[in-house]
Amino acid sequence: MKNEIKIFSPGTVANVACGYDVLGFCLDSVGDEMVVRKTTEKGLKITKIEGHDLPFDIDKNVAGVSALALYEDAQPDCGFEIEIYKGIKPGSGIGSSSASAAGSVFALNALLNSPYNKTELTRFAMKGEALASQGEHADNIAPVLFGGFTLVKGIDPLEIISIPTPKELYATILHPQIEIKTADSRAILPEMVPLKDAIKQWANLGSLVHALHTEDYDLICHSLQDIIVEPYRSKLIPYFNEVMLASHNAGALGGSISGSGPSIFALSKGQHKAKEVEQAMRNAYSKSEIEFQTYVSTINTEGIKILSS
Amino acid sequence: MKNEIKIFSPGTVANVACGYDVLGFCLDSVGDEMVVRKTTEKGLKITKIEGHDLPFDIDKNVAGVSALALYEDAQPDCGFEIEIYKGIKPGSGIGSSSASAAGSVFALNALLNSPYNKTELTRFAMKGEALASQGEHADNIAPVLFGGFTLVKGIDPLEIISIPTPKELYATILHPQIEIKTADSRAILPEMVPLKDAIKQWANLGSLVHALHTEDYDLICHSLQDIIVEPYRSKLIPYFNEVMLASHNAGALGGSISGSGPSIFALSKGQHKAKEVEQAMRNAYSKSEIEFQTYVSTINTEGIKILSS
Repeated sequence: MKNEIKIFSPGTVANVACGYDVLGFCLDSVGDEMVVRKTTEKGLKITKIEGHDLPFDIDKNVAGVSALALYEDAQPDCGFEIEIYKGIKPGSGIGSSSASAAGSVFALNALLNSPYNKTELTRFAMKGEALASQGEHADNIAPVLFGGFTLVKGIDPLEIISIPTPKELYATILHPQIEIKTADSRAILPEMVPLKDAIKQWANLGSLVHALHTEDYDLICHSLQDIIVEPYRSKLIPYFNEVMLASHNAGALGGSISGSGPSIFALSKGQHKAKEVEQAMRNAYSKSEIEFQTYVSTINTEGIKILSS
Repeated sequence: MKNEIKIFSPGTVANVACGYDVLGFCLDSVGDEMVVRKTTEKGLKITKIEGHDLPFDIDKNVAGVSALALYEDAQPDCGFEIEIYKGIKPGSGIGSSSASAAGSVFALNALLNSPYNKTELTRFAMKGEALASQGEHADNIAPVLFGGFTLVKGIDPLEIISIPTPKELYATILHPQIEIKTADSRAILPEMVPLKDAIKQWANLGSLVHALHTEDYDLICHSLQDIIVEPYRSKLIPYFNEVMLASHNAGALGGSISGSGPSIFALSKGQHKAKEVEQAMRNAYSKSEIEFQTYVSTINTEGIKILSS
């Protein structure tokens, strides 16, 4: 029997331009690590948090809340202690809370010999995510647990679809070190949108799903447009247009805001191109006074990885 | 050199529940026939129209207008005369004008040794379609020319995507003999729609495209929902809800209004099921006082067929 597991729980990009609230993909080069171990004493404890300052209280920590949802459902004859090594900065827009929320339930499930499937784990993780985003969403959680590109068709009932990942697709992320409150980035969106814009958006999402199936990079390029959400949210991100233009000029297929921002993502064909795009995005953002980080990543088709158990 | 061609130009279903204004598929068991022949005298003439009462004037007939658009672009050293045998009733909602508009350009192109590709033919046919629907649309034309399921990603520039057709998919159509003016069915739609509804719609369209690629009939079933347009337009179709319920109870995967109506379509897995669904829809509509016709059809993956040349 395994008593301890160490995992890597990756960052994710939600929305992916035309897929607001439903589409996401999984990163590989940025994420959290977590160690979870069984204890004879019942209950859950967070025993260590490194990397960022987060609450140890189970009820106030997203990893704690999601783990508790699974724990109360499973009612095992043991307890668990959780160590969190945050690699993703909270509020970055690349799924920090989802990595924590999904990571703890994945680890508990593994130590309990996997009684739950990925969709059930998503449901537990959504409880943790809700603590961070005031609402149950799965568009960042699904790619952490399923890997690759995921489409959350609906959350009640929860239906998650794995979309194929073209082999040469790479992501470049630029994370400006500013804070955008999720509440603000939601409040800025209109309740009503023009039907003609919605039509363009679903045409783009339909063609993006087709392009991912057929590895059609030109069509991925033409489909990565967000005319509904980006025009509003991009105003909250200084130098957004400059970064997008730079990535476009460097040959990226396209990009947009990652999740609710402030991170910006671009997709490229091939690692070499993704690195050129990274350099172009860095050059563009250097003109601002804002500190930033960048990442280049494969699309992680596996999701959470077990580092040791 | 071919001097005469006889073609079958099929009916089509546009919108397909979640794909308003962008998605369509091609029927096989209902359509128009057309005979087009070269003449030494230049110019275009419609010499025969059977089946329905339509104008012979080139400028007032959708097949004439589309043919003229191609003819003026190609500037051939000959003329053409066109015979139209309407099998589709105008105003039925299963692409009557698109069958005529696409049929004539397809035939002229064939007799000119195919200088134009399918996308170019779509553009000419849209000129004819515009005469009927006061606006350039391709969601009925694309499936006539490309066959199968088509996604019109955009019309400026025109981008048409062929989506794979699952082998066992069959369509059942019920055509109530009432008239709905296209202008009325457009006027009834709101200019603004709730963002949360638009999100559900694009999630459904994304998952339908995935389901067509993976031949996942359950997912086709879950994806065939229209929460944006159907609630408005279905009010114009007496007994719509009763027919939908009957088709559902008979085991159809799903359905909705065909185009702007009044026809109603259902999709089923297998011909046997599609015929059971047809019977159930007939039984439901028999309770109305309205005359109707029904069709069961394979999804025609070929589009327009050459009957003789």
